[in-house]
Amino acid sequence: MRIALAQVDYTVGDLRANADLVLRLTRQAADSGADLVAFPELTLAGYPPEDLVLRASFRRASQQALHQLATDLAAAGLGEIAVICGYIDDDGQPNGAESGGARNASAFLYGGNVVATYYKHHLPNYGVFDERRYFVPGDRFVVVRHLGVDIAMTICEDLWQDGGPFAVAGRANVGLVVNINGSPYERNKDDVRLPLLQRRAAEASAPIVYVNTVGAQDELVFDGDSMVVKADGSLVLRAPQYVQDLYLVDLDLTAATAVSTEPRTAMRIDRHASTREPRSPLGDLDAPVLAPRMTDEAEVWGALVLGLRDYVQKNGFRSVTLGLSGGIDSAVVAAIAADALGGDRVYGVSMPSVYSSDHSKSDAADLAERIGAHYREVPIAPMVDAFVSTLGLTGLAEENVQARVRGTTLMGISNAEGHLVLATGNKSELAVGYSTIYGDAVGGFAPLKDVPKTLVWALARWRNAVAAERGEKEPIPENSISKPPSAELRPGQLDSDSLPDYELLDAIIARFVDHDEEVTEIVAAGFPEDEVRRIATLVNRAEWKRRQYPPGPKISLKAFGRDRRLPITSRWQEPAPVIE
Amino acid sequence: MRIALAQVDYTVGDLRANADLVLRLTRQAADSGADLVAFPELTLAGYPPEDLVLRASFRRASQQALHQLATDLAAAGLGEIAVICGYIDDDGQPNGAESGGARNASAFLYGGNVVATYYKHHLPNYGVFDERRYFVPGDRFVVVRHLGVDIAMTICEDLWQDGGPFAVAGRANVGLVVNINGSPYERNKDDVRLPLLQRRAAEASAPIVYVNTVGAQDELVFDGDSMVVKADGSLVLRAPQYVQDLYLVDLDLTAATAVSTEPRTAMRIDRHASTREPRSPLGDLDAPVLAPRMTDEAEVWGALVLGLRDYVQKNGFRSVTLGLSGGIDSAVVAAIAADALGGDRVYGVSMPSVYSSDHSKSDAADLAERIGAHYREVPIAPMVDAFVSTLGLTGLAEENVQARVRGTTLMGISNAEGHLVLATGNKSELAVGYSTIYGDAVGGFAPLKDVPKTLVWALARWRNAVAAERGEKEPIPENSISKPPSAELRPGQLDSDSLPDYELLDAIIARFVDHDEEVTEIVAAGFPEDEVRRIATLVNRAEWKRRQYPPGPKISLKAFGRDRRLPITSRWQEPAPVIE
Repeated sequence: MRIALAQVDYTVGDLRANADLVLRLTRQAADSGADLVAFPELTLAGYPPEDLVLRASFRRASQQALHQLATDLAAAGLGEIAVICGYIDDDGQPNGAESGGARNASAFLYGGNVVATYYKHHLPNYGVFDERRYFVPGDRFVVVRHLGVDIAMTICEDLWQDGGPFAVAGRANVGLVVNINGSPYERNKDDVRLPLLQRRAAEASAPIVYVNTVGAQDELVFDGDSMVVKADGSLVLRAPQYVQDLYLVDLDLTAATAVSTEPRTAMRIDRHASTREPRSPLGDLDAPVLAPRMTDEAEVWGALVLGLRDYVQKNGFRSVTLGLSGGIDSAVVAAIAADALGGDRVYGVSMPSVYSSDHSKSDAADLAERIGAHYREVPIAPMVDAFVSTLGLTGLAEENVQARVRGTTLMGISNAEGHLVLATGNKSELAVGYSTIYGDAVGGFAPLKDVPKTLVWALARWRNAVAAERGEKEPIPENSISKPPSAELRPGQLDSDSLPDYELLDAIIARFVDHDEEVTEIVAAGFPEDEVRRIATLVNRAEWKRRQYPPGPKISLKAFGRDRRLPITSRWQEPAPVIE
Repeated sequence: MRIALAQVDYTVGDLRANADLVLRLTRQAADSGADLVAFPELTLAGYPPEDLVLRASFRRASQQALHQLATDLAAAGLGEIAVICGYIDDDGQPNGAESGGARNASAFLYGGNVVATYYKHHLPNYGVFDERRYFVPGDRFVVVRHLGVDIAMTICEDLWQDGGPFAVAGRANVGLVVNINGSPYERNKDDVRLPLLQRRAAEASAPIVYVNTVGAQDELVFDGDSMVVKADGSLVLRAPQYVQDLYLVDLDLTAATAVSTEPRTAMRIDRHASTREPRSPLGDLDAPVLAPRMTDEAEVWGALVLGLRDYVQKNGFRSVTLGLSGGIDSAVVAAIAADALGGDRVYGVSMPSVYSSDHSKSDAADLAERIGAHYREVPIAPMVDAFVSTLGLTGLAEENVQARVRGTTLMGISNAEGHLVLATGNKSELAVGYSTIYGDAVGGFAPLKDVPKTLVWALARWRNAVAAERGEKEPIPENSISKPPSAELRPGQLDSDSLPDYELLDAIIARFVDHDEEVTEIVAAGFPEDEVRRIATLVNRAEWKRRQYPPGPKISLKAFGRDRRLPITSRWQEPAPVIE
């Protein structure tokens, strides 16, 4: 059977455009002789649609879009290719507490009909996922006979939980499992996917076609990484990350036999048939794609570029603006923006104060020139002086007012010229609250929100090395990488005045935040107790600032945002006081 | 049996202080001759603890705190009174996807022991609730025989879902059900609670003791409203809203008989005994409290005052600051703050611009004087002029810069003097994005975030009327109530230039936002189609601003914040385009 994996970038809520995408790629698949094309989870609605699912109008439209799609496929002469596609199934009941009408569904379309429908069994309700809020879990196992092969449908999380439909697939002797996904990127997640697929393929005793979406939606980036794994665990096809395309494979599948006795299983097995008979294969395909693994830096950079590009484009912006301080964070954000949109859509603004070093201006100008960005200088002294003299500010209040004047300046430029403002803060700063709310935290999107400072440096070096390899100009000035980090809000200020070395800080944050490790556990692992306690306290106290921070792409196990939902008001502290 | 309902205000994460509160009120209950005292849901952890539950240290400490409490009660000579108290049960397993070690639990303490433990069956995962993220549901029904009466324990949501433990209670012939709650305030919710309790009491054929917490946690306000309802539906006790206290009632309960045959039920019934025999009652109690119902305005005002007071106190602030424009929103926020903290902890700042009317200053000063707040005037012209001339801003950019200069001014004062900044925006503005991000949206807390503009006026009139009744000075200047609303960012500007009449706007928002009604449905109900469409579009487009807005107390069916989780990136629009 010739199978096409449609690794597509859809847009939440745009039912019409998403259906058009299915039509276009199904045409392409059919032209390539495919017998079946599979699209990602919730293809028509986009993923994750969040509380749109609570709107009856949206559920109904999603259901209607599926039936219209089946009709349109047939009308376009595409009735002979099977299409597996995700959508929101709506039984017309109001969504409510612990019950409700919506299901996360996969449909098998053939000959202008919805031949069969499968409802996701395992609804993830952890991390960034809230699927128990929206969907009723399915309890049936669905098999469709197509070209003489029994094909089972599953959806995303079904793969990640034990005791689900894959074991049933094995008992039901299916010839193929098609798993459709909206699986967000996370560092090293691709290393987990393949062994998992191998395990499930063995359980199902059948090949698995794994189709993931590509693209970004608010804080999530979907990396693609679609695959085909045989029952023996061999990897037949692996699509590249971050690329929208159609990927083809020819699979020699076990033909179904007449079903004599149904296996014993807790799930009811629903059987359907596409009514098409097996046929002789078309001409040979080229060998299927086996995309090489990317380095960690390349993978993260790809996620950040796609995360920003999709946020900008899907929200109708054409350009971005940001403050260029000459430091590493703003340089890396600008380079990401240039890779995502082209340098001519990036508007850099240097906003020197009396405390700014000369190199802060020259490094900013150098960066802008290297990436081909627009550049202007707006000295902030007149505004800062007006605040300081009117309000009589000193100390921290005076430091913060500089950052806030810069924020207001960028917003003024944004209001006047229509650019999206990018915040340049990184995860290390955000963790400990080392930023000025309404100052450097200003922006509609924050590309480095989930990137620790040490990784920001590593990305800068990696990006420059890639440029050097390609014989291009290195985008990030060496000086921005090598100079000691400073907020430059008072004379001679350095980050190291307030924070531990970033290597140490990031290691502690990774344990305390990303892995929820206890203070005592981190200390036991060899970290200095005073620093661990201080950082834990800073992290806990900065929750109120994080709550007002702009969204940014998740790349870690646990990103600030919907992934980590801590109360602002909390007297919990670690190590826990001994209760006696 | 003499029963005490401890309607207490605890703090999330403060295990020690929360346990002390239990000890203190149990002492008071014992001194009043009570045989049993019941505390609200998750008494020791505080509610809702959110992602603290994902920390093993927190789960373990919560479990330990319970056992320590049992010991401490006995050591304090309080072993003879039964204590029902909520806590997080931890079986030591790591919390993970779809399984996990934590349970939302209720414990029965007696004689220094944890006699029995009940795990919440129904875990709410809608609206503001994410309990499926944290807890494993219970599957046992727990009965404790105390003073010869079989007492069943249930928790909050168990009451709101059909088919739960109340029906089992009826079959098991219990003499009493104790339901402990963390039930957030919502307008008119108290009208639903009593009939619901009456229905469940009939199902259980037994009286229900309903104990709710009182206090506020970030965006949630818990109003108390604890009750005792007999099997025949009669209301025996009703505690006032927003008051922390201990409420006593004597109940004549049906004695348990020796259990011969267990009823058939899907839930396993666990039986325990407190080992204490029935005893003669102490002297008579006064008639139990039956708090009169409050008006809608009184109830909302109470929620806003308590919401602000608890946020300020539990987060360690002593005072608040806010911009006083002479308009209704800032006047009402200041009056709430004065009621919550006392006028001398309120620092009002008038920040007139060249477009400010004379009455904006005089009304602001008048308000401050009426509520006894500190007052100062900071004209913003020097800062605005510096921005406008440096950046050459005009139009909307110039309007916004005025609001942002005010925001930066308040943050400067906050940094210098340590006050919490209050944002004064209301729900109507927030819905349609009629506010300046980093301008009037600046603040750590936003008391009117969930209050529509028409209700802001009603609250002002109500609060003044209360003052008049009491013979006190009316806090809110009549002029602030009666003048047409204006942002005063350009000459002669009025809200009505950009927005429909607030009566119409609020009615549409209530349908579109709070009730998720469809555009076509709202139009069919008689609202003008062009306005409904325009407002729906404005609401959808303002999501990015709301995401960075400070927290504020939920009072409606659906508040902006965790209660309503819409994507920023979305091309969904209503009415849905016809797909053809």
